[in-house]
Amino acid sequence: MNEVLKQIKNRKSVRVYEDRKIPDEIKQEILNAAFQAPSAGCMMLYSIIDITDEELKEKLSMTCDNQPFIAKAPMVFVFIADYQRWYDSFSYENCNPRKPGEGDILLACVDAVVAAQNTVVAAESLGVGSCYIGDILENCEIVRELLELPDYVLPIAMVVYGYPAESQKKRKKPIRFEKEYIVSENKYHRLNKEEHKKMHYTRNKKSGLEDKDINNYINKFCNRKYMSKFALEMNRSAAEYLKKFR
Amino acid sequence: MNEVLKQIKNRKSVRVYEDRKIPDEIKQEILNAAFQAPSAGCMMLYSIIDITDEELKEKLSMTCDNQPFIAKAPMVFVFIADYQRWYDSFSYENCNPRKPGEGDILLACVDAVVAAQNTVVAAESLGVGSCYIGDILENCEIVRELLELPDYVLPIAMVVYGYPAESQKKRKKPIRFEKEYIVSENKYHRLNKEEHKKMHYTRNKKSGLEDKDINNYINKFCNRKYMSKFALEMNRSAAEYLKKFR
Repeated sequence: MNEVLKQIKNRKSVRVYEDRKIPDEIKQEILNAAFQAPSAGCMMLYSIIDITDEELKEKLSMTCDNQPFIAKAPMVFVFIADYQRWYDSFSYENCNPRKPGEGDILLACVDAVVAAQNTVVAAESLGVGSCYIGDILENCEIVRELLELPDYVLPIAMVVYGYPAESQKKRKKPIRFEKEYIVSENKYHRLNKEEHKKMHYTRNKKSGLEDKDINNYINKFCNRKYMSKFALEMNRSAAEYLKKFR
Repeated sequence: MNEVLKQIKNRKSVRVYEDRKIPDEIKQEILNAAFQAPSAGCMMLYSIIDITDEELKEKLSMTCDNQPFIAKAPMVFVFIADYQRWYDSFSYENCNPRKPGEGDILLACVDAVVAAQNTVVAAESLGVGSCYIGDILENCEIVRELLELPDYVLPIAMVVYGYPAESQKKRKKPIRFEKEYIVSENKYHRLNKEEHKKMHYTRNKKSGLEDKDINNYINKFCNRKYMSKFALEMNRSAAEYLKKFR
């Protein structure tokens, strides 16, 4: 296994950090990895907001489903799917552009996340841990105001970075579902009830939780995640962002 | 610069391939990199469709804005943002789930693209070139039928892989915009006309195209990309996919 594959395999989310700043040259290396990422038509349909203001970090840790560890991360980037920049270029150069649509912003989301993941892989190789915060999609109105977002952008991901605390280094990386439930050939394979049970059972078993009651686990998980207030808020807020692109 | 950063820096899109299959063990390494990617709540909100059928590849090369090189790629993966799998788990276990919303599918898009980018980085480290095909977002109805997609999924990215032909190895990687136009501190920075001009001018200059007429270039680019038939189709089609999540 080469060095790149090893880094990818070892990388796990880190939510507790050493009280240590990330040196500026390391930060620049991580940002460079974003810029080197592939991008649709080399348009770089994203922006990165570097959150250095502690008060703002605190506020975002609250708008993102109240997760105090966010405010403690020494480096926080918000990845913005951005069609505003090109729309403005087209406007300034009198191209008489149409408004950006849902396809445009999804393409920009891909660009932004591809860049984000490059920073995550680069950070890992430099000993810097990271964690995605999907909750940046919540509270559209507040986040728009805090970050002064224009209409044709959407904050698709936040990533927090820091040197992992000892406890985090020891933490086991969660077991993934088996390949057969994720990959199919030539067409989508919709799992039947049997396969679902087996998918969860196999993961539990590999995690040392063979006896876990699947029905109870799925019901609790559904309540805690999918039916939770933050998930409903994320859907409301995402719809608000997307409205601008209809 | 460590090995990971070097690989990220050197990676560029590859659209012409050697006539050589990707060995199965290499394919598995590339897929493993996807599974090792971070994922919201470790839910793996994505599926990967491995397109091995040559006729299907041909059809997708046509639905994706007629790009014959796609059909010539020895390996083609479609990355599906997938809330169907978990919605079905919730349903099978009688959780009485609500329908997935726009926030849910955007979160799944992030999961899918994070996994996709891990495969791109892993492939590069194994000497395998790759290219994102954003056009998989087009022709919703045809793609749904070809890949037998259920309601709560969205094919957010296609990636094609292969060993780069000599011509591709020599190709220069396109110059990116400068950091100052992409990264801002604590709030979004909307570029003014002056900054736009400078952003394009600086990139042109670094690309050896200092004398390029920016107004003419942007107008042509806008017509060829943004106002094109395929861009309009992508917007129509993306809206169709997103309708299921409203």
